[in-house]
Amino acid sequence: MTQNTAETQTAFTVPEEVQSAVNAMADDARAASRVLATAHRSRKDRALHRIAEAIDSHRETILRSNAQDVERGREKGLAENLLDRLSLDHERIDGLISALQSLAAQTDPVGQVIDGQTLPNGLRVEQLRVPLGVVGAIYEARPNVTVDIAGLAIKSGNAAMLRGGSAASKTNTTLVGIIRDAMYGAGFPVDSVQSVDEFGRDGANALMQARGRVDVLIPRGGHNLIQSVVNNARVPVIETGEGNVHVYLDSTAEAKTATPLVVNSKIHRPSACNSAETLLIREGAPAAREVLAGLLKENVRLHVDERAAELAGGYSERVVAAEPGDWEAESLALEMSVKVVDSLEAALDHIQRYSTGHTEAVITNDLRVADEFVARVDSAAVMVNASTRFTDGGELGLGAEVGISTQKLHARGPMGMAQLTSTQWVVRGEGQIRG
Amino acid sequence: MTQNTAETQTAFTVPEEVQSAVNAMADDARAASRVLATAHRSRKDRALHRIAEAIDSHRETILRSNAQDVERGREKGLAENLLDRLSLDHERIDGLISALQSLAAQTDPVGQVIDGQTLPNGLRVEQLRVPLGVVGAIYEARPNVTVDIAGLAIKSGNAAMLRGGSAASKTNTTLVGIIRDAMYGAGFPVDSVQSVDEFGRDGANALMQARGRVDVLIPRGGHNLIQSVVNNARVPVIETGEGNVHVYLDSTAEAKTATPLVVNSKIHRPSACNSAETLLIREGAPAAREVLAGLLKENVRLHVDERAAELAGGYSERVVAAEPGDWEAESLALEMSVKVVDSLEAALDHIQRYSTGHTEAVITNDLRVADEFVARVDSAAVMVNASTRFTDGGELGLGAEVGISTQKLHARGPMGMAQLTSTQWVVRGEGQIRG
Repeated sequence: MTQNTAETQTAFTVPEEVQSAVNAMADDARAASRVLATAHRSRKDRALHRIAEAIDSHRETILRSNAQDVERGREKGLAENLLDRLSLDHERIDGLISALQSLAAQTDPVGQVIDGQTLPNGLRVEQLRVPLGVVGAIYEARPNVTVDIAGLAIKSGNAAMLRGGSAASKTNTTLVGIIRDAMYGAGFPVDSVQSVDEFGRDGANALMQARGRVDVLIPRGGHNLIQSVVNNARVPVIETGEGNVHVYLDSTAEAKTATPLVVNSKIHRPSACNSAETLLIREGAPAAREVLAGLLKENVRLHVDERAAELAGGYSERVVAAEPGDWEAESLALEMSVKVVDSLEAALDHIQRYSTGHTEAVITNDLRVADEFVARVDSAAVMVNASTRFTDGGELGLGAEVGISTQKLHARGPMGMAQLTSTQWVVRGEGQIRG
Repeated sequence: MTQNTAETQTAFTVPEEVQSAVNAMADDARAASRVLATAHRSRKDRALHRIAEAIDSHRETILRSNAQDVERGREKGLAENLLDRLSLDHERIDGLISALQSLAAQTDPVGQVIDGQTLPNGLRVEQLRVPLGVVGAIYEARPNVTVDIAGLAIKSGNAAMLRGGSAASKTNTTLVGIIRDAMYGAGFPVDSVQSVDEFGRDGANALMQARGRVDVLIPRGGHNLIQSVVNNARVPVIETGEGNVHVYLDSTAEAKTATPLVVNSKIHRPSACNSAETLLIREGAPAAREVLAGLLKENVRLHVDERAAELAGGYSERVVAAEPGDWEAESLALEMSVKVVDSLEAALDHIQRYSTGHTEAVITNDLRVADEFVARVDSAAVMVNASTRFTDGGELGLGAEVGISTQKLHARGPMGMAQLTSTQWVVRGEGQIRG
């Protein structure tokens, strides 16, 4: 759980000229959003296809800009995994294009009637999905997010204001330019999609301060980026992504089910927020030794308490004593903390203390354990005998994903396009008044 | 639209001992919320009935505390309408009791399955309503809000932390004491409902800073209170209530429908946020004169532009020239601003500029005008040929109302108990892993 006191609040000021410029851009985005809000689905889908085609026909320009960013990143000593995220190639550009195409194939959330009735006085009441208006995003050097968020915003009838991280600035400038041209070609205002990258960090800060002008701000990235936005924004924020994910291995779990589940939860993509970080083993669980052997076989390093050390075959290079910080950290690597607990209660206590509220899983064949676990775990997603890696918009059938919310308001868990909408009550009558 | 820049952000500090005390209270509330979250509906309803009975049997104590607050308020020169809101009598206590009883009769939002499917890989996915956890409320001297919010929080499985305004402190202390005793009697932790009133304004500020401890903060009251919370809180806030409400009278509207609609929207309860403040008349609308005459007959003072003056029979004591501020202000009184516009477009421009996004209404018999108005007005509620006073949880069939949200995230328009819940994904499998 995030723990902040008044003292930790960062005060910062945005140069007035930057704030004015970003406010004016947001006002242009608002005007564009009004056009997008009432555009029929077919027009929005046409724009998405046009952007996809434009990206396809500008591959060389995109790759050239990207090469400059990567080269500069390398000179500045950017870590290999960050360089990898930053890099585009033809295959990744194919991915951008097909993401836009599948977005076009998805149902339009705008105009969906989510509730409605005719009241006793004859009033016909409907609650409809409507776009939020202006969606802001602050993210780190991942050019694919530029295309993803722009596409999701357009399809859901919103204008987008992007701050994409200075390490990817050349690539993002090229991509945003292509998107704006394609929007113009499709008959939409160019200011449907804008970048505040030219203002550097001040641009991000100005977005955070643009209350009443930006309807929601989505930070995507690491812990520091997200916390900085959450702590400083005066615009509503949707907090995404941090996952200190737990798996509880009950004594009724069979090794043949449990081993692949724990291994998949850990190793399928260790850098993802829905990957498992801690394994809690019920004392005496017969599957324990086989599960730990399965993890070791996949080169996972185990950070164990004393009882778990014994189950893992004793301390070694790959079986190290857990330190207090291990229970809190999201390793995002082939590392797993392992603890033996005396009861379900003790497991729930541990989870309550250390969870970031993303995903927790139970592996059990005991119905009461499953029910108790589901009822008492307060996280966005709870898995019963399923891999934690299923906490994902695509996997849960939501289509393209905006991010995974770890907060409780507005959206929780994987966010699809519906989470980029608000609702509006429409009430139709024939002159009804209130008595 | 709220317009803020970095410069207007108020920095304030909370004395460390107050922040620590409020944090500790919030942790107790969190522990209590875990009990409430898994309590069956019948137990929660029993607690609500018990609170109702306790209020009934402590009428004299409540009225005595309230008399002290009212006396002190009078000495301090509190305005009559505030004294009225603050005052309790037997009839108002009856109202508190029956509100709790109807709450007990309502469906429990917790556990409702709002979405779900079985995926191709056999995973059974459900999205369930779960309580938010700890709900905070900051409001002005209205003792009924203490009982309302506590009741709504309990029924929706949340703990409540209240800051009720110093003018009502004796009444609130008595009411919170009664509620806590009744909760204890019903087998719930007393800290399910707590007040931070003892810390005065610092208590409110500490609540606003308790990020990670308080899940949502709901300000209820006037403009200044709401803006102060919105601008200073680091806890998620749901902005409620301000309503600069417009009615557009189209040229196809008939006087016999339009007159009662406009009059009802204005005079049914002028102090309510869903009461109309501005009437926009389409040039040449035949119903205009009769509508304005109807308002004047009900002692509404009209603030008119030149063309509207003519329609109202010329300037007089009750027909005054509109000043620029009139288009922005929520009068909350028998005052209405009236303007003649040349087109629907001009009406929409005016609304776009001055609306607070609460409610707008169109009176028309032209289907294209109705559709265009609904499509282009970006407010929580849009009325077609219905009084603006219907933007109300009770009237729209939501049951007891938490408030009326004028923001777009999480909740928009009248909020019922469902808006005091979040959702949780529950995924059940038989060992499925991600390939």
